[in-house]
Amino acid sequence: MSYKRIFDTDAWKLCTNVLHKEDMRLQESLTSIGNGYMGLRGNFEESYSGDHHQGTYIAGVWFPDKTKVGWWKNGYPHYFGKVINAMNFIGIRVLVNGQEVDLYRDKVTDFYQELDMKEGILRRSFTVNGQVRIETERFLSITVLELCLIDYRVTNLTNKPLNVELIPYLDGNTRNEDANYDETFWLEAERKTGDPFVSLAAITKDNPFGIERFTVNATMGMITDHSSSKTSEEAVLYMALRNEYNVLPGATAGLQKFVAVTTSRDMDEEQLIPAAERIAGYAMEKGYQQLKQEHIDAWEKRWEKSDIEIAGDIEAQQGIRFNIFQLFSTYYGHDERLNIGPKGFTGEKYGGATYWDTEAYAVPMYLALADKSITENLLRYRYNQLDGARHNAKQQGLKGALYPMVTFTGVECHNEWEITFEEIHRNGAIAYAIYNYTNYTGDDSYLINEGIEVLVEISRFWADRVHFSKRTNQYMIHGVTGPNEYENNVNNNWYTNTIAAWVLKYTLSSLLKVPEARKQELGVAEVELAKWQDIIEQMYFPYDEELGVFVQHDTFLDKDLRPVSSLKKEDLPLNQKWSWDKILRSPFIKQADVLQGIYFFGDQFTLVEKERNFEFYEPMTVHESSLSPSIHAVLAAELKMEEKAVEMYKRTARLDLDNYNNDTEDGLHITSMTGSWLAIVQGFAGMRTYNGTLSFSPFLPKCWNRYSFHINYQDRLLNISVEEAGVKIALLSGKPLTIELYGKETLITSDEPLVTQIAS
Amino acid sequence: MSYKRIFDTDAWKLCTNVLHKEDMRLQESLTSIGNGYMGLRGNFEESYSGDHHQGTYIAGVWFPDKTKVGWWKNGYPHYFGKVINAMNFIGIRVLVNGQEVDLYRDKVTDFYQELDMKEGILRRSFTVNGQVRIETERFLSITVLELCLIDYRVTNLTNKPLNVELIPYLDGNTRNEDANYDETFWLEAERKTGDPFVSLAAITKDNPFGIERFTVNATMGMITDHSSSKTSEEAVLYMALRNEYNVLPGATAGLQKFVAVTTSRDMDEEQLIPAAERIAGYAMEKGYQQLKQEHIDAWEKRWEKSDIEIAGDIEAQQGIRFNIFQLFSTYYGHDERLNIGPKGFTGEKYGGATYWDTEAYAVPMYLALADKSITENLLRYRYNQLDGARHNAKQQGLKGALYPMVTFTGVECHNEWEITFEEIHRNGAIAYAIYNYTNYTGDDSYLINEGIEVLVEISRFWADRVHFSKRTNQYMIHGVTGPNEYENNVNNNWYTNTIAAWVLKYTLSSLLKVPEARKQELGVAEVELAKWQDIIEQMYFPYDEELGVFVQHDTFLDKDLRPVSSLKKEDLPLNQKWSWDKILRSPFIKQADVLQGIYFFGDQFTLVEKERNFEFYEPMTVHESSLSPSIHAVLAAELKMEEKAVEMYKRTARLDLDNYNNDTEDGLHITSMTGSWLAIVQGFAGMRTYNGTLSFSPFLPKCWNRYSFHINYQDRLLNISVEEAGVKIALLSGKPLTIELYGKETLITSDEPLVTQIAS
Repeated sequence: MSYKRIFDTDAWKLCTNVLHKEDMRLQESLTSIGNGYMGLRGNFEESYSGDHHQGTYIAGVWFPDKTKVGWWKNGYPHYFGKVINAMNFIGIRVLVNGQEVDLYRDKVTDFYQELDMKEGILRRSFTVNGQVRIETERFLSITVLELCLIDYRVTNLTNKPLNVELIPYLDGNTRNEDANYDETFWLEAERKTGDPFVSLAAITKDNPFGIERFTVNATMGMITDHSSSKTSEEAVLYMALRNEYNVLPGATAGLQKFVAVTTSRDMDEEQLIPAAERIAGYAMEKGYQQLKQEHIDAWEKRWEKSDIEIAGDIEAQQGIRFNIFQLFSTYYGHDERLNIGPKGFTGEKYGGATYWDTEAYAVPMYLALADKSITENLLRYRYNQLDGARHNAKQQGLKGALYPMVTFTGVECHNEWEITFEEIHRNGAIAYAIYNYTNYTGDDSYLINEGIEVLVEISRFWADRVHFSKRTNQYMIHGVTGPNEYENNVNNNWYTNTIAAWVLKYTLSSLLKVPEARKQELGVAEVELAKWQDIIEQMYFPYDEELGVFVQHDTFLDKDLRPVSSLKKEDLPLNQKWSWDKILRSPFIKQADVLQGIYFFGDQFTLVEKERNFEFYEPMTVHESSLSPSIHAVLAAELKMEEKAVEMYKRTARLDLDNYNNDTEDGLHITSMTGSWLAIVQGFAGMRTYNGTLSFSPFLPKCWNRYSFHINYQDRLLNISVEEAGVKIALLSGKPLTIELYGKETLITSDEPLVTQIAS
Repeated sequence: MSYKRIFDTDAWKLCTNVLHKEDMRLQESLTSIGNGYMGLRGNFEESYSGDHHQGTYIAGVWFPDKTKVGWWKNGYPHYFGKVINAMNFIGIRVLVNGQEVDLYRDKVTDFYQELDMKEGILRRSFTVNGQVRIETERFLSITVLELCLIDYRVTNLTNKPLNVELIPYLDGNTRNEDANYDETFWLEAERKTGDPFVSLAAITKDNPFGIERFTVNATMGMITDHSSSKTSEEAVLYMALRNEYNVLPGATAGLQKFVAVTTSRDMDEEQLIPAAERIAGYAMEKGYQQLKQEHIDAWEKRWEKSDIEIAGDIEAQQGIRFNIFQLFSTYYGHDERLNIGPKGFTGEKYGGATYWDTEAYAVPMYLALADKSITENLLRYRYNQLDGARHNAKQQGLKGALYPMVTFTGVECHNEWEITFEEIHRNGAIAYAIYNYTNYTGDDSYLINEGIEVLVEISRFWADRVHFSKRTNQYMIHGVTGPNEYENNVNNNWYTNTIAAWVLKYTLSSLLKVPEARKQELGVAEVELAKWQDIIEQMYFPYDEELGVFVQHDTFLDKDLRPVSSLKKEDLPLNQKWSWDKILRSPFIKQADVLQGIYFFGDQFTLVEKERNFEFYEPMTVHESSLSPSIHAVLAAELKMEEKAVEMYKRTARLDLDNYNNDTEDGLHITSMTGSWLAIVQGFAGMRTYNGTLSFSPFLPKCWNRYSFHINYQDRLLNISVEEAGVKIALLSGKPLTIELYGKETLITSDEPLVTQIAS
């Protein structure tokens, strides 16, 4: 693994004294901030002429870019949905005696930058050419989501007065780096000049796919605490206010930039500017400091429910907080039309808003760390997109619903046939999340009201997608790509067959809870249910008697099986070093595949089965997906392989902070960030929730002195602390609860924390 | 099958009285002409403002267009090589009393167009607006390949003098319809104005792949047989000569346009214009009529060796001649740097110059119909590209040489992973062509001198590409796409394993003929030969005992096996009606796969084996590749399934003439055109050449009265005629020859034709 760390280790902050000109994209990715409604890379306010990636993204605002492939396959989606780079609304040009400040060209000294994760605030200070000291602070409010606030000050370090111009601007001339033709996606829609606001609205270009066009308006207001003369500048998709100051030696000039961003997702076009003016006006009246304090308080509340403390390992401490911070900055459930994109608001790669990562990896963490309504919104997102999923199934000539690999609307927009058409196990993860939510919360109202429709439609898909092999008298699923994307178009992927049969089973049992009228509404007839039962009973699950393992797919065992340790160092990572076909033929596994199934359905396999499969598959796994190590950490922990569990945890904890995959400059691996949480809570602490019972069997990794974490579970807030002295479980709020600790029923009350020895 | 016939049936011509405005692209494709050096679609000389596709192509002149895919896979080629649409040098604008003739807008009556296949000449005549009658004739000389000659005349049908302007021009402002960004590929390189010639040279744009840029020059001269005043017109990449005539009632004005095309493939840039001037000058001196006669004589010689006569079926007669005519127009072996592109000079689809179609389908026909030097050039083409093939293998991390799927230089330029990386059986066809040539000609000098190096390198590829499955103790080939492209990424495709083992075997036996010094040069060591022998002996060939058939690949029999006849009519063709994944999972076969192997190695299987496999696979075959029906026709004929053989023949004979695939507007299926020849000669007449013996076992299809064809075989020219009265075999030239007729040794001498009853 490669390794690059550009920020100092600190429990609550990312800080550095270095302006990383050679790694500006990496620095920008890591200092991204967001509030679920919008987000931006850690771009500088002032000009920077070196290589970097200016990126501002508004949740749910996207563009359908025409699909371009060498050879079209029937069924391909017509467009690829792209998160689009929106208006730069943070920019402030700075001129000192007429000379523009440019951090790439100028002599910058005493540079300092910090991302305060506790408070959700990004700060910078630095000296330019020995002349001026600049201090700046920025946040995207999590209490008023439309607001971006910036405090910007310039101090004269010379012994002569300086002419300082500060030019805050709005600039809609942005481009997506992944645009097919380097074209822009925006047109100017409207502008309004005036006092105290200027507004600029941009609309996405027209498209031939019937996808709605989005208008995004930014209204900018300004408070300057220093006398200045103002003028304004305008150009296409550009508006600026020019403030000129005469700054005496030792004095400071500055301004606070208030930006309110409104979009056509939330209101009619004609309301965009008036609404933004109201919000900006409210903000300016309330004042920067007050809004900042409310923002900090709101972050404090989030942390109260979610913080993990790790004593004795500052790197791990920083890593887990960074992951939780960035996840919450990306999604905190305020809008059921949104989901968790793989890069969040931190980059453009992968396009699309939604992958199965959400259901497989993010849902467990949100369930434990935040109100259940947040997870319910993630489920509702899929429910609302059921029509799109039906469309996808129909495109393939199949019944029911196929949730997409990549989407904004439910309609598939990814176009590799081996993924789009074949990586259909994703449909199982959507169903699994419904089970997970229902089981964890103990609340089956979502299941009965909405979830059941999703389950029935997914079941219909599976029932049509299997085929009956007359030769073997069994149902099979041919032509799939399992979670291990280093094999494509395989037959009878054990994981896929397993989750398909499980979905049918779960749907049948869930239907028992559903009123007859609803069933009729869903059109489920006895003959259909009988067919599902038949598939469940006669599904083929590849298994090898001799090895005693589930077989990844039909011909996996015919491969030249050998461990990753037999590879030369220069062969890794395979995805950069080997031709694609060589990877496909090899036995090497990108991420948990059979083991993903064993993880999901952990209560259905014996420890011996788990161990045999882990020992067979893990040595062949290269973990080149950022989603892989966490699942292995959880299983290794259960199998008491502490060393392996810690090794796997380490690969996920600081993936971006240490840039292990050498691609964090493109943006953060947002959906993989739950991995370190899973490894600690489900792994080291052994948390499970099978059959409506919360259970733990924690151990303390040798490298740590202590770790503690919070769990929201059925209206309780628990704190679990694991240290050498023992496991301490405190009920911070809610009614007493019986849990299982090391397999033993234990009552937890709010009287005093339960303390037990760590079991060996 | 759909069906559209726009030309009348005629034994030697394509003719029509209809200007097919709705099907202009189809009309243009079918009236394409070429001379191996260059070719063009049947575009009109005068303007045509309706939908059509102007296309001129120069053999070996191409452009490397940057590869664009949604998701890059390691090992992909960086560019896709495109046959490029070159300068339009046939154009002649016509103005009558200042009004431009435009066949799309004008009133056109008495339209007539004919492509004379015997003479290789394209003619048109028509009346425009009742005013003028235009007659035009065009050919690309097959004696002086650089020459395109056009005779163009306009007759005044009115009773008043007409002002007629004829403006022959050269226009390099052409575009490829398949350009990634609709950009042009040409820049102007040079121009020369003067008398009697004007010249315009265009150079292909620069590229970042180190691929040579091509310059194409056209020099235009003109003979007008009528007094006219001349001026010239110029623009970027455009030159024209304006001729103005005063045409009296009943009189005719006209000109002959002489164009000489030279390219940087053949000479230094500075020679392009002088050389073209010399050639055009020579042509103008010799005169249109004389050159035309020489051209006709040369075609006559080609036909003497190759013509097939079919009595009692004019459609079949026209079909087979059209196919031979178009193949010879595309390739007649004058230049070993060239090959046979799938669309020849008739369109742009598929890009690339060379596919395995050449070796698998075209070589047998060229062997029988033309001098062996022509086929030898096709082999030498691959020999000369061995370095490119080595590069391809290396790209995949493998030893030896992998011939590309699509190429101009030997370097792969196709970018679907399942084809580029996996359809590697193509490497076998390259070796098979060496065997085919050597066996057919009885001349092993190519094999020993050049072919052996190709064989050794291909063998090295196979030896590295197989893997040893410890579980089964056999060598396997995983991750391939067989000839049936309706399955991808399968394991142990029987055809691929068969041809791979055969290549190793053939290479080992061929090495026995090679001097020790050459072997050392090739670096073949005993240990390597032993390894090959080991692979031959332990290769796994999927076979099903119960069914007694070779199994297409490992899990084929697990599919929901059913015949094409079980499909609904609206499901066909699958490639237009079904989603790609549904096709992949289905049992339906695009083209001969197991049967392709049985066809290639027909002497190694019993009739019973052939029958069992044919009866198992053919009913599941949709024949949606134009390469499929011919192979099935040959096998069906051998199995005495006359009806099936004729049905299959019919699908190949008039594929383009009747536009069965509904895509002939994109260009002709050049490489599939050998299919009808294979069906007649190897099918109906049962020609084989196993073990250096020429054999026949002809039957006469019920629908025909007689058919006869020519065969060049080891310095003899034979004519075989099959009619109810019997089979007549005449030795037209060369020494007496012993052949096998219906399994019986028979001596053929030039004394008099051998006549035998048709065996039943």
